[in-house]
Amino acid sequence: MTEPVFQRLAVIGCGLIGGSIALAARERGAAASIAVAARKADTLERARQRGFAETYTHDAAEAVADADCVIICVPVGATGEVAAAIGPALKPGAIVSDAGSVKASVIALARPHLPETVHFIPAHPVAGTEQSGPDAAFAELFDGRWCIFTPEGDVDADALAKLTAFWERLGASVETMDAAHHDLVLAITSHVPHLIAYNIVSTANDLQTVTRSEVMKFAAGGFRDFTRIAASDPTMWRDVFLHNREAVLEMLGRFSEDLTALQRAIRWSDGDALFDLFTKTRAIRRGIIDAGQEADLPDFGRPHGAGD
Amino acid sequence: MTEPVFQRLAVIGCGLIGGSIALAARERGAAASIAVAARKADTLERARQRGFAETYTHDAAEAVADADCVIICVPVGATGEVAAAIGPALKPGAIVSDAGSVKASVIALARPHLPETVHFIPAHPVAGTEQSGPDAAFAELFDGRWCIFTPEGDVDADALAKLTAFWERLGASVETMDAAHHDLVLAITSHVPHLIAYNIVSTANDLQTVTRSEVMKFAAGGFRDFTRIAASDPTMWRDVFLHNREAVLEMLGRFSEDLTALQRAIRWSDGDALFDLFTKTRAIRRGIIDAGQEADLPDFGRPHGAGD
Repeated sequence: MTEPVFQRLAVIGCGLIGGSIALAARERGAAASIAVAARKADTLERARQRGFAETYTHDAAEAVADADCVIICVPVGATGEVAAAIGPALKPGAIVSDAGSVKASVIALARPHLPETVHFIPAHPVAGTEQSGPDAAFAELFDGRWCIFTPEGDVDADALAKLTAFWERLGASVETMDAAHHDLVLAITSHVPHLIAYNIVSTANDLQTVTRSEVMKFAAGGFRDFTRIAASDPTMWRDVFLHNREAVLEMLGRFSEDLTALQRAIRWSDGDALFDLFTKTRAIRRGIIDAGQEADLPDFGRPHGAGD
Repeated sequence: MTEPVFQRLAVIGCGLIGGSIALAARERGAAASIAVAARKADTLERARQRGFAETYTHDAAEAVADADCVIICVPVGATGEVAAAIGPALKPGAIVSDAGSVKASVIALARPHLPETVHFIPAHPVAGTEQSGPDAAFAELFDGRWCIFTPEGDVDADALAKLTAFWERLGASVETMDAAHHDLVLAITSHVPHLIAYNIVSTANDLQTVTRSEVMKFAAGGFRDFTRIAASDPTMWRDVFLHNREAVLEMLGRFSEDLTALQRAIRWSDGDALFDLFTKTRAIRRGIIDAGQEADLPDFGRPHGAGD
């Protein structure tokens, strides 16, 4: 068996991401022992039933007391509160990281509460499903995915190497960029896609000329694809939009401007403009499949036929 | 073996839809013999290699000559041309149908070319994948899906019953509505979703601040979902937007209005408005799963882990 990367890992938050990190770390031997903390009683109880860790507590400070590495896995808006709670209890030399979908804001929230003696390496594993909570967690979630680190200034090279080894043990690859750039990249690859998915589902829900039952029955024409990410955790996503406001508004402005041009092409029956745009978008999917970020199966590999 | 519904079926067009109809009709014994027509030599050759039919021809009029049922499966903009070609060759009493995603426009294009002696029943199977052409066809495509009929005026009850039996044999359920309502329903459940998917992929493709390679690498955050339908056939989709213009512009107007409200909520940090909207959209996915139009699997059932 390979040596564990950390002797003691603390995971704060036991939802889809925190739970999957704990399960993957156990299964792949990335930590010799794990402590998890959750605020809610039923979350902690499910974490215990699923065997996420050796230690279970409602007290984040207790969970981090002996930890070599702490990963904060809560909605980004709660990051400051968690950092304030664990700050005084952190072991000197510990690595403190997170899994938030926004980085500049997380750094601003967490940094003031963390002692100089710890190595703070903000991180974002780009992985997930539309489900949430401890029951949604699974050890394979990070296989083949990217984890983006956004360290600031001079970060200890050993700490960076250890956290990289940890994520690689969980199946991910690590990329480093600055926090502001991360927030721009994720605004277009994740945040705006979620926003427009939530939006079209809401628009369809509010129609009077088409019933909700018709929307559901005939969803296989494309709409159902959007309902997946529009079923994602509302608290997590509210926080993402509140905390990555500028980048989201910038990307959303571009999206709307481009959509207005398409709308105009439809109104003026500019078939060539539509055809050209619909042709160039095909290549991107091919690129994503070639980059190993999508299975090469029609219809996402959805089941067809009798078992559907 | 159950009796075939039709003695002779003609399918005009051998792409994903026409090919899947032919394969399903053969496999399920819905037609005693099948003739297929395709314009392009390589399409017809692939149809032959995959065994779609008994008769293969480039001449649509030849394919329909003895047919009890003809299904036109071409991009909606080509419907008038096909109807003009087959009109004089149709057998009196034959059923003429189609598979177009737009119905009012298809009726206006086809009707003038069809003799009074045939039963014209416009139809739309709400099924598909992002792939196109004869290689994408498969017999299970219509299992559990809906096929919408939009007959006008007094249509022969026997003809309606036979076409219904045919689609049910292919695994689909049949619903009837008027063409204008169909076009409105599909505008929100299929056409606008495709348009915004094409649009966000194009927006992402054109950015300077985020590279195309970054968009591809970090697509698992949500963006990759949109690239699936944005990889759909450009000719088919150009025609859909040109031929369902009014309904698409109406639904797109509502979508944009709602998106502007969400944008404002982000700008003014109205977390409650975001949370409430993100909460209500969850129920729709549950409804789609309960309606049998989506598999109850996280992440569309995408493979995770080693085989990803």
